[in-house]
Amino acid sequence: MEADESIMRHVIALSVENVQSGRGGPFAAVVVRDGKIIAEGTNVVTSENDPTAHAEITAIRNACQKLNTFQLDGCDIYTSCEPCPMCLGAIYWARPRTIYYGNTKSDAASIGFDDSFIYEQLDHPPEKRSIPMRQLLADEAISGFRAWEAKEDKIAY
Amino acid sequence: MEADESIMRHVIALSVENVQSGRGGPFAAVVVRDGKIIAEGTNVVTSENDPTAHAEITAIRNACQKLNTFQLDGCDIYTSCEPCPMCLGAIYWARPRTIYYGNTKSDAASIGFDDSFIYEQLDHPPEKRSIPMRQLLADEAISGFRAWEAKEDKIAY
Repeated sequence: MEADESIMRHVIALSVENVQSGRGGPFAAVVVRDGKIIAEGTNVVTSENDPTAHAEITAIRNACQKLNTFQLDGCDIYTSCEPCPMCLGAIYWARPRTIYYGNTKSDAASIGFDDSFIYEQLDHPPEKRSIPMRQLLADEAISGFRAWEAKEDKIAY
Repeated sequence: MEADESIMRHVIALSVENVQSGRGGPFAAVVVRDGKIIAEGTNVVTSENDPTAHAEITAIRNACQKLNTFQLDGCDIYTSCEPCPMCLGAIYWARPRTIYYGNTKSDAASIGFDDSFIYEQLDHPPEKRSIPMRQLLADEAISGFRAWEAKEDKIAY
């Protein structure tokens, strides 16, 4: 499907409004199916006390609630900015069809957001990251995975 | 602070229980402050129809609601598995002190989860990813960022 510039203009307007209303950062996103917006989301990190409440995460959660599913097959996401690693990860788990974005992660970095920094951190091995990460009780932790393998009626995702 | 193996054992037990109860995948996490668990989370993607409801995301959201903040300064996170890119991004936005994990992303890949695949995808430029990403209306999208820069009473995060 072709990109719909009128949808991106709506997303951009939402991002500006989100700043002006004081709800959060300058970010908005929508989920589109069959050419129509089915869910919206803006960044509400500071107003909702939720560091995970970025625009894409909020839009994906809203869309899945509406569609009663945990997958966005055949949907497109329009977002005012290239997704941060958290949101890109969420997108991969939700598995939409196409992503359209306005600003880049470099644009985000230039106004003080950590997106580029976090992308760099992901490339370091766990023990070299700025937030230290240490493995613990690996021999015991695997029991959860063994339980998953053994479960016959599991719902894969 | 030293790692507390009894906390990790509790997290591992939660991950097994999460499979057995059919709530979701074999993953659990807790947020710890001053040596005490202040919030728990398990993977409830399929039972809640929320692809973002991984254990770490759920635990971070619960902890922030409890502490009435969007930052986890001085907190540690114990998670049954090395975080996927979405959860690692969420951790960077929440800014806890230390992460302890049980299984690795390779362990997760070996039982069918996409963690390693998503890590690889993040290293590709947007236009080369398996979910296509395309920039649109960059000249207009920047208006949200300009509004953010101009706002005097903004709450940074």
